Amino acid sequence: MLRLYDFYDSGNGYKARLALAQLDIPYEYIEIDIEKGESRTREFLARNPNGRIPVLELENGAFVPESNAILCYLAEGTKLMPSDRYERAQVLQWLFFEQYNHEPNIATARYWLRHGHLTPSREPLFAQKRLAGYAALGVMEGHLASRTFFVGERYSIADIALYAYTHVGDQGGFELKRYPAVCAWLDRVRAQPGHVPLLKPQS
Amino acid sequence: MLRLYDFYDSGNGYKARLALAQLDIPYEYIEIDIEKGESRTREFLARNPNGRIPVLELENGAFVPESNAILCYLAEGTKLMPSDRYERAQVLQWLFFEQYNHEPNIATARYWLRHGHLTPSREPLFAQKRLAGYAALGVMEGHLASRTFFVGERYSIADIALYAYTHVGDQGGFELKRYPAVCAWLDRVRAQPGHVPLLKPQS
Repeated sequence: MLRLYDFYDSGNGYKARLALAQLDIPYEYIEIDIEKGESRTREFLARNPNGRIPVLELENGAFVPESNAILCYLAEGTKLMPSDRYERAQVLQWLFFEQYNHEPNIATARYWLRHGHLTPSREPLFAQKRLAGYAALGVMEGHLASRTFFVGERYSIADIALYAYTHVGDQGGFELKRYPAVCAWLDRVRAQPGHVPLLKPQS
Repeated sequence: MLRLYDFYDSGNGYKARLALAQLDIPYEYIEIDIEKGESRTREFLARNPNGRIPVLELENGAFVPESNAILCYLAEGTKLMPSDRYERAQVLQWLFFEQYNHEPNIATARYWLRHGHLTPSREPLFAQKRLAGYAALGVMEGHLASRTFFVGERYSIADIALYAYTHVGDQGGFELKRYPAVCAWLDRVRAQPGHVPLLKPQS
């Protein structure tokens, strides 16, 4: 059985949990408390030398770190990943956009606010993250104004990756209501078969 | 013929130029001067609403933004991308690592230094980028200590993506000689057939 090393409040981990649920793939959930340094132990660094969750452990004991690499691994050959070459490139385009322009701003702002890490010295950087996060939401709004989903008018891992931290953007101080096309897309993602919320899986 | 919209000094653009050269794919080079705001014009935003180079234009007029998505698009079915499912996941793992942990630190530090953007207000962030960039180099050093290339002991787009800004790390103030395994790998990458340096292509 697959094993997911994950922190319950992580949107990056949630991407994997949502894809696993929608692909109906059973897995064992191993909680790693990043607030207690559990992703930096020697044991964990053997799974991911970059010291970050989520990490997917395959049946043969090999490890796949990086949430969006996990999404690609799980989705290959399924309804969640297009087979057309250009559509695949578009899915990857949005996955890289998510990790470069979206997550470092929206997810980090949320993490700092929720877990008490917004120290005074971080205030200038927090202000920059607000601006950059809103810019990312603006790019999404423009794209979604004329589209149902991010790529090929079908739900894919591009939607899962961007849903993960967008739908909790308010927890990072982002006013989502300024982005009506994004809000309508969030509703469409939530209505997909097999959708699960960002919560620790019930064991 | 493919078209590459690119800025000559960009390591992200260089990734595409290097892959195109090594795959022997002809292309037209369109220079976009990001220092003059040419990646933020209405015309350019129609190619990439995120306003960034490189962008690859396909023969049918469709656009692929995001350097690592371009790499995946070009490499699919070639010697530069493994066919094994787990090896593909590892390639993606390193591509996402590059965009999250490496490029925002090493490439941004280099860009600020080379193009006069290291303003006094950016000094604290610059110091953070030094630390985070060195941490990324440390992860690479540990991985390469027992390996020839990043994935499957074969040269792939994971090497291209990480080579692009690592080999000019000194231009961002990073002392590469502290990382002997990284330096030996840089030499192996430079020795690959069809290697081209980070320069504007000759027209």
